[in-house]
Amino acid sequence: MRVMVIDPGLAIMGYGIIDTDGRKSTLVKGGVVLTTPDMRMPERLHAIFTGTRDLLALYKPDEIAFEELFFARNVTTALNVGAARGSALCACSEYGRPIYEYTPMQIKQAVVGYGRADKHQVQQMVKMLLHLDDILKPDDAADAVACALTHIHSGQMRHQFLMK
Amino acid sequence: MRVMVIDPGLAIMGYGIIDTDGRKSTLVKGGVVLTTPDMRMPERLHAIFTGTRDLLALYKPDEIAFEELFFARNVTTALNVGAARGSALCACSEYGRPIYEYTPMQIKQAVVGYGRADKHQVQQMVKMLLHLDDILKPDDAADAVACALTHIHSGQMRHQFLMK
Repeated sequence: MRVMVIDPGLAIMGYGIIDTDGRKSTLVKGGVVLTTPDMRMPERLHAIFTGTRDLLALYKPDEIAFEELFFARNVTTALNVGAARGSALCACSEYGRPIYEYTPMQIKQAVVGYGRADKHQVQQMVKMLLHLDDILKPDDAADAVACALTHIHSGQMRHQFLMK
Repeated sequence: MRVMVIDPGLAIMGYGIIDTDGRKSTLVKGGVVLTTPDMRMPERLHAIFTGTRDLLALYKPDEIAFEELFFARNVTTALNVGAARGSALCACSEYGRPIYEYTPMQIKQAVVGYGRADKHQVQQMVKMLLHLDDILKPDDAADAVACALTHIHSGQMRHQFLMK
């Protein structure tokens, strides 16, 4: 099974793609899609949409997951993050495979075994679980990969996490 | 020139389409695209995306406008409204025509002549300016049409309102 996770943001969208045979997981690709403030808002959102669509077409994941979002610094940030997230979700919905969602606490719990683990601990566990030589960079890619590992480890409970 | 305005929301997306020859404006269509809470979030966003894409393909507007959004009840609402807005903007960006943006105050100023006018005054002026027999319903469609009239009346200042 191949899992793709999107960690959407207006400036940086992280993604991670993992293959698993149920016992061993392998990192296929972790990376980011960038947009810059000199682009107009509709162009930025469209770049996120087409970036997501291209990744789906290239890597053909079986399942997709997102980190659940319920916090933002303020309403303005939330409108922008929501727009970026909506753009990525549109592309994923068009792709037609099931989309799951995990809270940051569920991800930390699954990857580190402790719901309040810090970013550094998550990165170290991602490195170890996937037998990487180094910590995955940038952070947004590592976050996406951590969410993909969470999805893989959610096993029979997975249906609970289908995005509502 | 044909103007299409989208007033995006997760449950109700209003739209309005107006033709103008520079002197007289005619309502082509005002309506809404609905999604319901029993649909999953990715489906709702995709319905907004495809709904917008279908309207663009059907009515082929020359220019597009949105009401500027910088307020929401709270962060959760802002994430949802932002996602709906992002989905509609993606479809408009793909369509490739310029996208403009007006604040609620600019719309009230342009349509009623008074930036703090209430919803009822805006609806009455929309009815009058477009020679309609009745007030346009629902509100979301009337709002979109008011924004389209604002765009038409913005004339030479229009370049100032290109969405950033």
